Amino acid sequence: MKNKDIAVCLISGGMDSCVCACIAKKKHDIIIAIHISYGQRTSERELKAFNDISDYLDITKRYLVELSYFRDVGNSALTDYDIPVPENSLSDDEIPVSYVPFRNANFLSVATSYAEANRANSIYIGANQLDSSGYPDCREEFFNEFNKLIKTGTKPNADIKIITPLINMTKEQIVKKGAEINAPLHLTWSCYKNSQKACGVCDSCLLRLRGFRDAGVQDPLEYEHPVKY
Amino acid sequence: MKNKDIAVCLISGGMDSCVCACIAKKKHDIIIAIHISYGQRTSERELKAFNDISDYLDITKRYLVELSYFRDVGNSALTDYDIPVPENSLSDDEIPVSYVPFRNANFLSVATSYAEANRANSIYIGANQLDSSGYPDCREEFFNEFNKLIKTGTKPNADIKIITPLINMTKEQIVKKGAEINAPLHLTWSCYKNSQKACGVCDSCLLRLRGFRDAGVQDPLEYEHPVKY
Repeated sequence: MKNKDIAVCLISGGMDSCVCACIAKKKHDIIIAIHISYGQRTSERELKAFNDISDYLDITKRYLVELSYFRDVGNSALTDYDIPVPENSLSDDEIPVSYVPFRNANFLSVATSYAEANRANSIYIGANQLDSSGYPDCREEFFNEFNKLIKTGTKPNADIKIITPLINMTKEQIVKKGAEINAPLHLTWSCYKNSQKACGVCDSCLLRLRGFRDAGVQDPLEYEHPVKY
Repeated sequence: MKNKDIAVCLISGGMDSCVCACIAKKKHDIIIAIHISYGQRTSERELKAFNDISDYLDITKRYLVELSYFRDVGNSALTDYDIPVPENSLSDDEIPVSYVPFRNANFLSVATSYAEANRANSIYIGANQLDSSGYPDCREEFFNEFNKLIKTGTKPNADIKIITPLINMTKEQIVKKGAEINAPLHLTWSCYKNSQKACGVCDSCLLRLRGFRDAGVQDPLEYEHPVKY
């Protein structure tokens, strides 16, 4: 009998991780879903999105991981609540203050530990480097390096690879892909702010809205501010 | 005025991390000490050792980081209390059940986040690959890969390097080095078990005791079982 094929899937609750999880779900027998709460402003709202998406995809094996030390690390508008979340400030020039230092290495290390312990061969993460905020730990080069690290730092019989299906997609392509595979985008939460409705002006909302506009698809979420696109 | 030179130092409370911290303390203006509690059996005892060593070295900037998800990850005698800690079983042949999946990548990711946020340039870890239990994430190759990961995953102006001063030392050499630089080895805790005195029979005690014996130095700790070396 063939062993069941297991994949670990990092699901933040945002649009990208939702589309990524749907892609993983189609390819693997068992999904282990991991949500990481790291003291970010929107942790409750994101956790709800994680559970809603996991329910929709019928994923029963779920782990909530708390990395609350990111509040101590600070240095980011997402985890240091004294630093305002920038508004209407998308720029290609520099790394924005929403960057959380080396966050994705922490997330992927967690995922690799779960993968090795559960004999999973794949780790899915919905990172994308094209329409992104320019975070260094969202680039393809970073994930390639992480794959080398996994090879040297796990048991010889472990065979684990990071999969980044969205890495070279634009937000427009991600929205189109999501629509094509019936990803439950109405259950997602992308906004960096902790408000009732999505703010519509933070980097994450702006990137998302641009993606929906370019794809010619209506974003199912409600927004606080009138949408500029 | 020259900027102060800051180093992050991972201190478990064991002999190796103690000697490593003493080496770091001599070389850098400011030490940020990090202790990681990951649901291991001996977490309370290790935390005491961490604080005792930090007091001795006059390190005021300390962070206690909780990675309790390692209990969920399991798959190790250190974090799954149903798996007995092996006794008198040092072997060069295979990776023992005390191996915690990809643990050091998790630890170094935490340290790198603190280093980047605090503009530290060095991260010290007391890993050693010679007299070790054969864990894949304790080998020099792993730390070299991690340095490459840091380069690709942090901001361009960050300049952070993992330093492993003990990586190619035997336990004998580590004990001698500790004695030479007056490391407070009497404050350390190496044992994998959570008992009043160190057990003297787990892998970690055996490696430590062999080091003291070969160095011709008396181990200041008390042991539960009569020491065989």
